[in-house]
Amino acid sequence: VHGIIEKFFDPSSVAIIGASRNPEKIGHMILKNLLEAGYKGKVFPVNPESPRILGIQTFRSVEAIPSSVDLAVVAIPSKIVPSVMEECAKKGIEAVIIVSGGFHEVDHGRRLDKAVLEIARKAKIRVIGPNCQGVNNPHSGLCATFAGFSRLRGHMAIITQSGSVGGAIQCWAERDGIGISKCVNLGNKIDVDEVDILRFLKNDTDTKVIGIYIEGLANGRAFMEAAAEVSKAKPIVVLKSGVTRAGSKATLSHTGSLTGRSEIFDAALKQADVIKANSLEEFYDIMKAFESLPLPEGPGVLIIESSGGVGALAADTCEKSGLRLPEPHKHAKNRLREVLSEFCTFSNPFDLTTESLNPEHFGLVIEENKDNDKINAFITIFGDPIVGAAEVIKRISTETDKPIVVTYLGGGDVEMIERDKMRAVGISVFPTPERAVVALQALVKYSESLRQSDTFWGTRRLLGNRSIDRMQWKRNFC
Amino acid sequence: VHGIIEKFFDPSSVAIIGASRNPEKIGHMILKNLLEAGYKGKVFPVNPESPRILGIQTFRSVEAIPSSVDLAVVAIPSKIVPSVMEECAKKGIEAVIIVSGGFHEVDHGRRLDKAVLEIARKAKIRVIGPNCQGVNNPHSGLCATFAGFSRLRGHMAIITQSGSVGGAIQCWAERDGIGISKCVNLGNKIDVDEVDILRFLKNDTDTKVIGIYIEGLANGRAFMEAAAEVSKAKPIVVLKSGVTRAGSKATLSHTGSLTGRSEIFDAALKQADVIKANSLEEFYDIMKAFESLPLPEGPGVLIIESSGGVGALAADTCEKSGLRLPEPHKHAKNRLREVLSEFCTFSNPFDLTTESLNPEHFGLVIEENKDNDKINAFITIFGDPIVGAAEVIKRISTETDKPIVVTYLGGGDVEMIERDKMRAVGISVFPTPERAVVALQALVKYSESLRQSDTFWGTRRLLGNRSIDRMQWKRNFC
Repeated sequence: VHGIIEKFFDPSSVAIIGASRNPEKIGHMILKNLLEAGYKGKVFPVNPESPRILGIQTFRSVEAIPSSVDLAVVAIPSKIVPSVMEECAKKGIEAVIIVSGGFHEVDHGRRLDKAVLEIARKAKIRVIGPNCQGVNNPHSGLCATFAGFSRLRGHMAIITQSGSVGGAIQCWAERDGIGISKCVNLGNKIDVDEVDILRFLKNDTDTKVIGIYIEGLANGRAFMEAAAEVSKAKPIVVLKSGVTRAGSKATLSHTGSLTGRSEIFDAALKQADVIKANSLEEFYDIMKAFESLPLPEGPGVLIIESSGGVGALAADTCEKSGLRLPEPHKHAKNRLREVLSEFCTFSNPFDLTTESLNPEHFGLVIEENKDNDKINAFITIFGDPIVGAAEVIKRISTETDKPIVVTYLGGGDVEMIERDKMRAVGISVFPTPERAVVALQALVKYSESLRQSDTFWGTRRLLGNRSIDRMQWKRNFC
Repeated sequence: VHGIIEKFFDPSSVAIIGASRNPEKIGHMILKNLLEAGYKGKVFPVNPESPRILGIQTFRSVEAIPSSVDLAVVAIPSKIVPSVMEECAKKGIEAVIIVSGGFHEVDHGRRLDKAVLEIARKAKIRVIGPNCQGVNNPHSGLCATFAGFSRLRGHMAIITQSGSVGGAIQCWAERDGIGISKCVNLGNKIDVDEVDILRFLKNDTDTKVIGIYIEGLANGRAFMEAAAEVSKAKPIVVLKSGVTRAGSKATLSHTGSLTGRSEIFDAALKQADVIKANSLEEFYDIMKAFESLPLPEGPGVLIIESSGGVGALAADTCEKSGLRLPEPHKHAKNRLREVLSEFCTFSNPFDLTTESLNPEHFGLVIEENKDNDKINAFITIFGDPIVGAAEVIKRISTETDKPIVVTYLGGGDVEMIERDKMRAVGISVFPTPERAVVALQALVKYSESLRQSDTFWGTRRLLGNRSIDRMQWKRNFC
């Protein structure tokens, strides 16, 4: 089975059925994206009327394609999808993405669902969709999608029932210089669902963390079983909509999903060691943290900042999230008192104040506390325009296995420059102290669950030290 | 008293005591910022050693300044602040900002507090600080602060006990093209506090919304009384830290603030019709919404989107926030069915789907529903790269008094361009559906409280129609 699922992400050849000359048509956009993303396999646009589209030869039908086809992407009116499925079956195509809408999310579409599924089962075709935006895999250049995608190769995989959720995450990941490993939009999920993709991603070496946006699950038990298995190898983050009456009405009309009771869902996620995100932004932040940071070995955090206000906000969020703020050791404080201004707060949060507005001082505080067993992670908050922050964090990250979560805010142009510098070497920057803490808390929770199941060290090795790792990735792939 | 408070924001002359030639010194940064921000009044740097700093003449002492001084900004070691206060008293200066730290936030500083306050009381000097970043008023060019400020003239005022909180809000407001009306960092608040500033801002015509970051209040009752009075004229948003044990320990060492019990504080805020923000980002989002949107007359919201996933997330957040999602009228749906694709969801959320991916369709849906009494606001979510969104929102905003909250995400470069276009005409864009809903909910709550106190129409007029209003401001000031 994996063999076929892999064809959705790394096919040798792709047919775009419904490729169009009209730039406003989805069949045009998909072809264009595929070509521009640098896909190396063979591309066969299928269109009965135009002999060439975007400079390449088209074919009148699937049958007319002269060689074998690994993947078909279908962007034609729903009514004629069944007959095209028959052609795909004849051609021996095993993987089909149906982008077209107009299936069971609308009243008269249920009949079409059934017809498509029947053909697929008979011919052993696996189907993604219908009513979906397709698949994007920057690592193979397979950008078989029509909107909001990233070409940047990264390590977060996104499984989504919503095009805009996938698009938003990819946009943010691109702006943050993080990129993605895969994005697959499942749409109405008449065949391929989260379970298939999860099991595939478990062994995908490009993927370090998996984010899933869910509207509804046809088989909750199968999902939870797969999630419990995969989460032992890689962290899984879930964002679920339809958790209220209004939201579930919306998902019903969007992808025809029945959402179920959210308390039961939440409890099952917890059982499977899956991390639940409470908003779209949190969903992204948590993935970003997993992508870029080593796992902490416990809940102890030292907050280091240059302005007490953001430190207090971070401390509040830590306590609400169940993170601990241990005091630095006396000897560490004493050594720091010799170097830093007397106006600093030698506690937790550790406030450098404007009197010690020097990025090296953040590094010093980490150095003096990195061997404290009760401190498992650092949150550094640059709350002013502090020049040189990137250099210090880059250096100090190589000196400890403990995660150093960076927040930068209120720094104007300096902030932008430092943030870019950090991104370039694989250091993720969070925009507020609260968002940094919530992301770190997910890491703490996940690492706790791994330690309980004895897979901590294996997975930790896999996730690795982020800064070295990301640079290596960049060398290999970008 | 107002006369003196005004001198902190719009003085005719400023003395910078502790002005320095060393670019790393705070006394240098303040002078530089003041000059670069285009302050039109007289500037007197005070420094006993350097005859000129940044091209302007310095004075050996406050006494040596040849004319009267409205405001003194003090950036010298705390130990010599009392003697400088004596000089200010002799010179007849009525307003002093003490930037220097090293007062009651550190052990041995309490004595200094007392000394400074005694001199101030005797000489009728009002003091902001100590241990603060100063004041910024882009409308007068008075940028008497050393870090993270905006020069963009806007209508949100910030009162803060933290430099980085004020800096972060100003940075975001600048990036969003919104700007601020005033930012004042109160630091340790030995004299001037939130009450003084609130009463001043009540009548400040540049200010439409007031945001306050609080660590602790010496006189909670006086604050709540002032807030209750001012909130009838202008919305007040409060972000409070120190709400947990860890956070309150942090605020104690930051500004020496005792935080008090948060449930009592929350109840009092509610009584005073003050909006409470739950995070730094929410604090900003809510101010941004007040700054740029008319007040809704009720809790009914129509969500319009191009991708069901973000619609479902918005619907969930609406229900959690107590907002209502009324169905569009049958006749409105029928008229829209004539124009839009059959695959659209003619409900609430109103899903245009990718079949109707045309910005004009967002406008059409608003037009057909704008006279529905149960719909008091619109949330439009552009969840794909939709070209022309700005034009449509700009036009439709002039056709209704109901707020149209815009979210744009997952749109890559197109999103950036459209967002800039909207910002240029005073339309605020929110980055996620959840953040848009939470901001709108604050508007609904505030407008409810105004209606109960019969001041709704007066304040609504004051807040005005945002897009016209902001453009007018830009013409007048920028």
